[in-house]
Amino acid sequence: MKSVAEIGEDGLIERLLSLCPPAHEDLVVGPGDDCAVIDFSRDEWQLLKTDAVVEGVHFAAEEDFRRVGWKAMARVVSDFAAMGGEGRQYLVTLGVPREMAVARLEDLYRGMLDCLGRFGGQLVGGETSRAAEGSGLWVAISAVGIAKKSRLQRRSTARVGDKILVTGRLGGSIAGKHLDIEPRVEQSLWLADQGFSTAMMDLSDGLAKDLPRLAKVSGCGYRIDLSRVPCSAGCGPEQALNDGEDYELLFTVASDQVERLQREWAGRFPELVLTDIGEMVEFGESMNITGGWDHFSSQS
Amino acid sequence: MKSVAEIGEDGLIERLLSLCPPAHEDLVVGPGDDCAVIDFSRDEWQLLKTDAVVEGVHFAAEEDFRRVGWKAMARVVSDFAAMGGEGRQYLVTLGVPREMAVARLEDLYRGMLDCLGRFGGQLVGGETSRAAEGSGLWVAISAVGIAKKSRLQRRSTARVGDKILVTGRLGGSIAGKHLDIEPRVEQSLWLADQGFSTAMMDLSDGLAKDLPRLAKVSGCGYRIDLSRVPCSAGCGPEQALNDGEDYELLFTVASDQVERLQREWAGRFPELVLTDIGEMVEFGESMNITGGWDHFSSQS
Repeated sequence: MKSVAEIGEDGLIERLLSLCPPAHEDLVVGPGDDCAVIDFSRDEWQLLKTDAVVEGVHFAAEEDFRRVGWKAMARVVSDFAAMGGEGRQYLVTLGVPREMAVARLEDLYRGMLDCLGRFGGQLVGGETSRAAEGSGLWVAISAVGIAKKSRLQRRSTARVGDKILVTGRLGGSIAGKHLDIEPRVEQSLWLADQGFSTAMMDLSDGLAKDLPRLAKVSGCGYRIDLSRVPCSAGCGPEQALNDGEDYELLFTVASDQVERLQREWAGRFPELVLTDIGEMVEFGESMNITGGWDHFSSQS
Repeated sequence: MKSVAEIGEDGLIERLLSLCPPAHEDLVVGPGDDCAVIDFSRDEWQLLKTDAVVEGVHFAAEEDFRRVGWKAMARVVSDFAAMGGEGRQYLVTLGVPREMAVARLEDLYRGMLDCLGRFGGQLVGGETSRAAEGSGLWVAISAVGIAKKSRLQRRSTARVGDKILVTGRLGGSIAGKHLDIEPRVEQSLWLADQGFSTAMMDLSDGLAKDLPRLAKVSGCGYRIDLSRVPCSAGCGPEQALNDGEDYELLFTVASDQVERLQREWAGRFPELVLTDIGEMVEFGESMNITGGWDHFSSQS
């Protein structure tokens, strides 16, 4: 019998989804994008998202839990942004070791609330369970959001010839950046409103893992210029491709729009670099970059 | 610094909630009931719920994972029922040990899908994370549901003089019953439609833990006749009060309606016993039963 380590995260998800019956009519976007999308009202889609961070996997036991709380929440906020949407109601599920100090969990909550205070949305409920003996804390956050129908951003809508752009600089998450996620909410809503982006996702598992996912569901290939990938200070392209947890936006834009986008972007978001790293090509002409973060295959 | 074991589950929740800012106007029912309730449309409330089951806490490692999947899902279905509502979209978050066999996770999904096939609702998304080294599987399920406004059932609306009723028989979960939860969906919707119940919750942590919760938020006390508490085969009142994981309905009914309710119930649900176990009294005249399941204080 195969283990999850043998088939990896994407393989596992594929196996589990194949068991599910056909989607109901009101499910506009099912598993495989940053959020699920439900038909909801005349002008808005409802977005649903769940995510988790685990002690020993996503954060160290001795970490400042206020930063861990921020991170846990910011990852979800970032997923809504990647769809051109905004989170509204958040639910927190905790697996808590019995001996954990209450004060540390209060710090965790403060960090989550800091993030909601900045980006909007409220905690409306939760569940606390004991974690298994010997296990550390884990935090699952699920949330309901909305997106204007005219704004919705998907992974699967990139077209051959579109340019590939990325916000910010990639790599170096493990040096501490992973706790200071800045979800690109303002940027994604602006891009969607202006109609620049043809497809979008946020970078959670590294460009080397996430770009092939976007290309695959769009039915395209991709070619990027590795020398143009924007690297965090102290990082080379290897780390920029593979480290993961960048939470920058990866998106595609019609090639004749890139110059205008760069000009308007520089006026609007002068502090955040925006880089054209390559283009979408026919599936058969794709590069084949591999790497990035896989929960089960990665040894860390 | 106090640990969560020292203050217990309810104490922890109270501490964490005190950090949250005031609720937005659209939050009709916040933390403390079976689901959060959001203002949503003219005729319906939106319900939000999250829950988790943990290997070594809620199920044994060697358990049949199809039954574990049923249990994980049925607990959430039961919470919607306890509000007079129904679940619609479900999200599954897994913490998975790397060495776990994929076939077992497929069984888990089959069990969850069995439950949705029976009670309605669909899986629309999820997240898989690696569990920490040495930890077993954990499964968090969150979901969105709806309740007709006219049907909503709350914990906090019991009145002095109301009778206290419970469906089914209590106790004995650990002997295996906890894996065969039968959420009382049909019964709760019928009770709500008929207008019998003045307050309602589902029994998850044992009558000894849950009845005081219902009374507290209703601002009442309670008096029950221990000899009338319906016990599962092989169980005495001690287990019926304390074992937890019954997932029966606990609800209150105006005293002059109980006879008519019992008559109509017997015609409609002849296979499910319905027992009048006591009544709501003034706060100061309450019994004081203690016990039941607490994640952090309980030693199991």
